[in-house]
Amino acid sequence: MMTATQLFQQCPELTHDYVVTDRVYDAFRTCSGDINALHVDDGFAHDRGFSGRVMYGNILNAFLSHFAGMLLPTDRVMIHAQDISFHAPFYLGDTLQLQVRCETVSEAVGVVIYKFKFTRDDDGKRRLIARGHIQIGILA
Amino acid sequence: MMTATQLFQQCPELTHDYVVTDRVYDAFRTCSGDINALHVDDGFAHDRGFSGRVMYGNILNAFLSHFAGMLLPTDRVMIHAQDISFHAPFYLGDTLQLQVRCETVSEAVGVVIYKFKFTRDDDGKRRLIARGHIQIGILA
Repeated sequence: MMTATQLFQQCPELTHDYVVTDRVYDAFRTCSGDINALHVDDGFAHDRGFSGRVMYGNILNAFLSHFAGMLLPTDRVMIHAQDISFHAPFYLGDTLQLQVRCETVSEAVGVVIYKFKFTRDDDGKRRLIARGHIQIGILA
Repeated sequence: MMTATQLFQQCPELTHDYVVTDRVYDAFRTCSGDINALHVDDGFAHDRGFSGRVMYGNILNAFLSHFAGMLLPTDRVMIHAQDISFHAPFYLGDTLQLQVRCETVSEAVGVVIYKFKFTRDDDGKRRLIARGHIQIGILA
């Protein structure tokens, strides 16, 4: 079993690219049952000032499940808590870069808190899409 | 266009049941790409003290997308921010009751913050599964 300190030492920070593919979008729509016009109707989204159907912000929380479950150096983890704030819309086909950095290690309770942000390349500059925190607990 | 105060007046609180069906589970797994053993391997989950494959906590955030996009009295909304803490595991086939209650209305910026909790019936008692906040912005 890995300790919180070992998790921090082996993964103090990490960067990973996620692509919002048709498959990701379709699966999220199916999972959530959310067919709000903003997410499925380009015309409605255009009329509200967006360049097309706005992707579901909670797709990013699904990507964070992948980060916790698949990218950490141990699979014996569980998400305890998360927060996220959305700063700019993203669209079908976008590549979003996730950057995480360890913020707090609580050895006594086996918890590591990572700060994260998702950014997208906009003409050579990184544009902030969302940011927040994810608290990871270590399982026995 | 609905104002934040009107949104609060028309939806001060709300209750809705969500079922974690195979379809929801499969779609979340596809969306996230998270195949951590805790979520896909009953034996692994049993060995960690759970009664079976633990469902992805972020399925609840997908349900919150449905709440924001489909259950509010206007479709002209967007999630600005969310936080969630997970208090107990949930399993395939569980019916989870979402209860939301308006906490803050910011008329000047067109924002309403709802407190939420997900609970499950455990032998006649409501067991807390997760709770948090969701900040909803109103679109023009």
